[in-house]
Amino acid sequence: MPELFGAVFARGAAAEAVSGRAWLEALLSAEAALARAAAEVGVIETGAAETIAAAAVPANFDPEAVAASAAAIGNPVAGVVDRLRELVPADHRDAVHYQATSQDLLDTAMMIVAKAAVAAIADDLHGCDRALERLEAVPGDLIGRTLLQRAVPLPARDRAIAWRAGLWDPINLLGRLEFYSSYGGPVGANWALDGDTDFADIQQLMSEELGLEPRLDWHTMRSPVVRIGAAAAEAAGACAKIAVDVILLSQNEIGEVSEARPGGSTSMPHKRNPVAATCARACAARTPGLLATLYAAMPQELQRSPGLWHSEWETLSDLLRLTGSAAAWLRECLEGLQTHPEAMARNLEEGTA
Amino acid sequence: MPELFGAVFARGAAAEAVSGRAWLEALLSAEAALARAAAEVGVIETGAAETIAAAAVPANFDPEAVAASAAAIGNPVAGVVDRLRELVPADHRDAVHYQATSQDLLDTAMMIVAKAAVAAIADDLHGCDRALERLEAVPGDLIGRTLLQRAVPLPARDRAIAWRAGLWDPINLLGRLEFYSSYGGPVGANWALDGDTDFADIQQLMSEELGLEPRLDWHTMRSPVVRIGAAAAEAAGACAKIAVDVILLSQNEIGEVSEARPGGSTSMPHKRNPVAATCARACAARTPGLLATLYAAMPQELQRSPGLWHSEWETLSDLLRLTGSAAAWLRECLEGLQTHPEAMARNLEEGTA
Amino acid sequence: MPELFGAVFARGAAAEAVSGRAWLEALLSAEAALARAAAEVGVIETGAAETIAAAAVPANFDPEAVAASAAAIGNPVAGVVDRLRELVPADHRDAVHYQATSQDLLDTAMMIVAKAAVAAIADDLHGCDRALERLEAVPGDLIGRTLLQRAVPLPARDRAIAWRAGLWDPINLLGRLEFYSSYGGPVGANWALDGDTDFADIQQLMSEELGLEPRLDWHTMRSPVVRIGAAAAEAAGACAKIAVDVILLSQNEIGEVSEARPGGSTSMPHKRNPVAATCARACAARTPGLLATLYAAMPQELQRSPGLWHSEWETLSDLLRLTGSAAAWLRECLEGLQTHPEAMARNLEEGTA
Amino acid sequence: MPELFGAVFARGAAAEAVSGRAWLEALLSAEAALARAAAEVGVIETGAAETIAAAAVPANFDPEAVAASAAAIGNPVAGVVDRLRELVPADHRDAVHYQATSQDLLDTAMMIVAKAAVAAIADDLHGCDRALERLEAVPGDLIGRTLLQRAVPLPARDRAIAWRAGLWDPINLLGRLEFYSSYGGPVGANWALDGDTDFADIQQLMSEELGLEPRLDWHTMRSPVVRIGAAAAEAAGACAKIAVDVILLSQNEIGEVSEARPGGSTSMPHKRNPVAATCARACAARTPGLLATLYAAMPQELQRSPGLWHSEWETLSDLLRLTGSAAAWLRECLEGLQTHPEAMARNLEEGTA
Repeated sequence: MPELFGAVFARGAAAEAVSGRAWLEALLSAEAALARAAAEVGVIETGAAETIAAAAVPANFDPEAVAASAAAIGNPVAGVVDRLRELVPADHRDAVHYQATSQDLLDTAMMIVAKAAVAAIADDLHGCDRALERLEAVPGDLIGRTLLQRAVPLPARDRAIAWRAGLWDPINLLGRLEFYSSYGGPVGANWALDGDTDFADIQQLMSEELGLEPRLDWHTMRSPVVRIGAAAAEAAGACAKIAVDVILLSQNEIGEVSEARPGGSTSMPHKRNPVAATCARACAARTPGLLATLYAAMPQELQRSPGLWHSEWETLSDLLRLTGSAAAWLRECLEGLQTHPEAMARNLEEGTA
Repeated sequence: MPELFGAVFARGAAAEAVSGRAWLEALLSAEAALARAAAEVGVIETGAAETIAAAAVPANFDPEAVAASAAAIGNPVAGVVDRLRELVPADHRDAVHYQATSQDLLDTAMMIVAKAAVAAIADDLHGCDRALERLEAVPGDLIGRTLLQRAVPLPARDRAIAWRAGLWDPINLLGRLEFYSSYGGPVGANWALDGDTDFADIQQLMSEELGLEPRLDWHTMRSPVVRIGAAAAEAAGACAKIAVDVILLSQNEIGEVSEARPGGSTSMPHKRNPVAATCARACAARTPGLLATLYAAMPQELQRSPGLWHSEWETLSDLLRLTGSAAAWLRECLEGLQTHPEAMARNLEEGTA
Repeated sequence: MPELFGAVFARGAAAEAVSGRAWLEALLSAEAALARAAAEVGVIETGAAETIAAAAVPANFDPEAVAASAAAIGNPVAGVVDRLRELVPADHRDAVHYQATSQDLLDTAMMIVAKAAVAAIADDLHGCDRALERLEAVPGDLIGRTLLQRAVPLPARDRAIAWRAGLWDPINLLGRLEFYSSYGGPVGANWALDGDTDFADIQQLMSEELGLEPRLDWHTMRSPVVRIGAAAAEAAGACAKIAVDVILLSQNEIGEVSEARPGGSTSMPHKRNPVAATCARACAARTPGLLATLYAAMPQELQRSPGLWHSEWETLSDLLRLTGSAAAWLRECLEGLQTHPEAMARNLEEGTA
Repeated sequence: MPELFGAVFARGAAAEAVSGRAWLEALLSAEAALARAAAEVGVIETGAAETIAAAAVPANFDPEAVAASAAAIGNPVAGVVDRLRELVPADHRDAVHYQATSQDLLDTAMMIVAKAAVAAIADDLHGCDRALERLEAVPGDLIGRTLLQRAVPLPARDRAIAWRAGLWDPINLLGRLEFYSSYGGPVGANWALDGDTDFADIQQLMSEELGLEPRLDWHTMRSPVVRIGAAAAEAAGACAKIAVDVILLSQNEIGEVSEARPGGSTSMPHKRNPVAATCARACAARTPGLLATLYAAMPQELQRSPGLWHSEWETLSDLLRLTGSAAAWLRECLEGLQTHPEAMARNLEEGTA
């Protein structure tokens, strides 16, 4: 299925970070890390862990087959586990997926892909910030506009300063996010059985290998998920604010800025459309609805929800992909943004007459 | 990019109807129909229309290249038009994309794919309805439950009757939807120039070929789009209502129904999970947020929106895909649903004691 | 609690139609109509119906007390019924609320208030349409703008024609809505017992008196509710499209239109803000999220939902109130809208240079 | 307008904290604090500050008149300022609302009411937590349920432990929120002019008096607003998770818990409905849509948005009110929750047979 709109909505490194391939790799990394951790605390054999980790590589898995396996159980983890058990010697089979439930692996994988996507988003936001730093050098004043009506002047450099300030909030929030591993077992109570089974030690070791934080059962307490979504949506909103301003200031009648590589039109070759800002806004406009879906999925029933949990997977991926695409488009927009002092001066002089 | 969750969220014929391939085919059908219509009213040569229509076939287009072209202009239509002009003799190039704007083609294609997806959804809803008809034969009474508490009895057949009634509303609404072609030209005003240029005749002929209704400029008046979304979301909600009931009635402690092919679990092989109902609910849970995105995109500025229009494309596709998947899962659930009269009798007898 | 923002968000007749007072009156009308209908089919005494109908008037009810009663049961119907039973002679008490459940009365009341609100919305939309008809008289051309960039000219009258077309869709949709009574009884199965109890006849008569359509059990099949929401949100979106255009065209740099009574500013008395369009947009911006809440509430469990049903009441009221306010603000905006031919001519002449 | 549903949806102290009266008091506090701060830095006379602060008390303001004033400008601040200027001697009039814009006062007031509402929500969440602590004493095991199917046992105390863990996340997040004052002036650039005018000192002093943090221009950079919304929605979701579990575990067929004061029914007096949990769920179900509205309002144009800013006021109030009501209902539910060990034992013993 070609991604016909991928150049608009799957732009930037975040899109790759949440791809199906990345999810599969994250699932395999999680199984491998679990096996190594279980071996280190001594509940499975070291040899078993080695064969499991060696087998848990993408080349051994047919993505189509793994995906198809989800039809039977409602998620693709069983397909991964079954194939992994095929790949290891018979006496190591029981060591695969040690005392875990499919949600443990899927939630851990979700955090792995989310962490990578968040890093990609932050990188593009930093790029936006650096591009705006350059724009602070604009001298003089410009006319401020409230409710899109000319109001009173403000220093020209303030436009870039205000835009930057709007980006720092989500940059900081993304940087403070915590990404957790999951290892609750069948009903989330592994931790309560810990005296016997070293579950806490296993999760600690597994988390270190995967770059995640250990956290007791969060199978149906979903703050960790909605927080990632909220930080992403805030970043998308901050990008959209700047994109909308660029679009407004690019109007022929205002002309205070323009994109370096304005897009043409199939019917009007003379058009100089602010394409990057338009695409940034389009990506961001899709995030509030996705965020609402994540929050609406919070009331997950008892020890595993029939359906609300499932509704998070693609929703969070889409939200991160779209936020990343918004940031990538905005970076492109700002890195090439041209400012037009003569237009600023003209608009300022005309004032509100 | 493998669709790792496709078996859950891209199930049923609607998913294929909104695929990237289907969108590209729809764009090509629209260009071909436009050319033939323009030739029929005499504004381009018949030979040009023939070469255009012959060239506008998927085999001539590299989906990756078309998709990549969207980066320049913000949508993939220019890539299609440019390639089409390469494919036809030089003297027919001006006849390609006659007096249309990229939004005309994309909106027309959106309606083509939506119409096919809606038909697929309706087909699965009819399948659900037929499966429920069979369940009406259940004799005796069952205990009604309000706020999940046992209340008073109702005839057992009424459960299926009520579920069916809930499906008929969206079935009828989907059946009454209208799918429009677009032919507004650069600023949506083709129709206003009609005395000179036969635009209305061209659109009428083009629409007939494509199975769409002609409609004057709707570039930034988006009722036609949100209506499709609302009908789909209503269908998804009706499916989710039944799915939730099946999940509740399948609880071990109630046991009045069970799925024919309950799914296992990676950690608990004895489990009999209502997987189909769970997946139907998961698909449906994602639709309200997407619907909100479509309505939030209604205030499209002046003659074409910088970004809100773009935000519709994947959103409507996802909404139709998820609704279709919910309907397909529910159909599977209901076609195999087993009812357990002894449990109904036991629960009824215990009453509210 | 003073409604501090009521002048902005509770404007127009729709706000009054969904007020607490209107809801209470609707509940009382429904109880009265039920009693009269039950007497007419002969299942309660005519004298009982007369005393019930005479008692079911607002003057007999303390709104605060009715509201407070909802704390015990989760809705205010029991408070109404208890008070009604106090008001009638002891031998008529059993005739009150005959074979109904609280949801029957509340859903019927919801439809009564919704019908009145929809009529108010439609009235203001017709007012907008008439105001726009006047604007069609503008001669000459204006410059079309796509992605907020000047594109090619279109006839000046087309602006008003396009805006009007955008309003007709929701006007027609609102006009086709159906408003239902509810009379399902404790578990929605009154209709199934009809051979014995004339329930269908009672509902038919009750519906006629209330101006509603009878409809079998829809306690947990909620298409009737979401459809009203969808039509309202579509109307709000259509209003917002025009409001945004007015705001953009009112920019000092464009100046093609201005509001008759532009609002001032606490800090900048010279400002001429497009206040009515701004408020219309603000009201409409709040509707997509509310609509999503209604659709998310569709999967109502078994014979009555613990909570999802309840989530509809204020949500639908708010959605109708805000849509009505958007329409009222837009009407005010458009009735006084001034067009500035010299600015249109200047912008057209400058073209895309 | 009686709040007919107030007992359900305006429960708890948060509802009062965001009332119209509270908003008006917050506006007056902000004007008084601004005057005192301006006097302290010496830009207005101390006597002027004293008369302004003395005049800025609710008794001097007619809430209806203030509310009505919003129709002219789109917000109620001008009405407050005009009335305040009437109340002070003529030579102090210019000292009122010193160098502020209406958005400064409204945003500051929004933060004052939000801070109080958040404290009320946190208080009820702490109450829930304490109630759950008591439930940890339950001995023995219970059967875990995944996808609503019996799975394997878990220690009975873990149910309360898991629920508590789900509350701590939003409790901590609410506790870390920052509430800002606003003092940007007409176009948000007061701070840029600070060398001349001591704006930073004024804002610092004003913030200290109001218990807020000073923050440079955030008129159109809205992270501070969406963060409050996100923390509230997360709290609501955490409450809903527990409420849904209580509803499920209260089913007659499961019977492991019951509310202390279950609600009756107008038609079925024997019913023991989990009313508090039902109402908590209903309140929470309305929050995701409101949250989406806040995020959708982030792209606020240039120096003040025509409409998106306005869309925040009631939306944030409603979100805080509903979250507070969810927490208050859940607290009531949990404080009286009865656990039934015999039912737990029976369900555990029956296992998954």
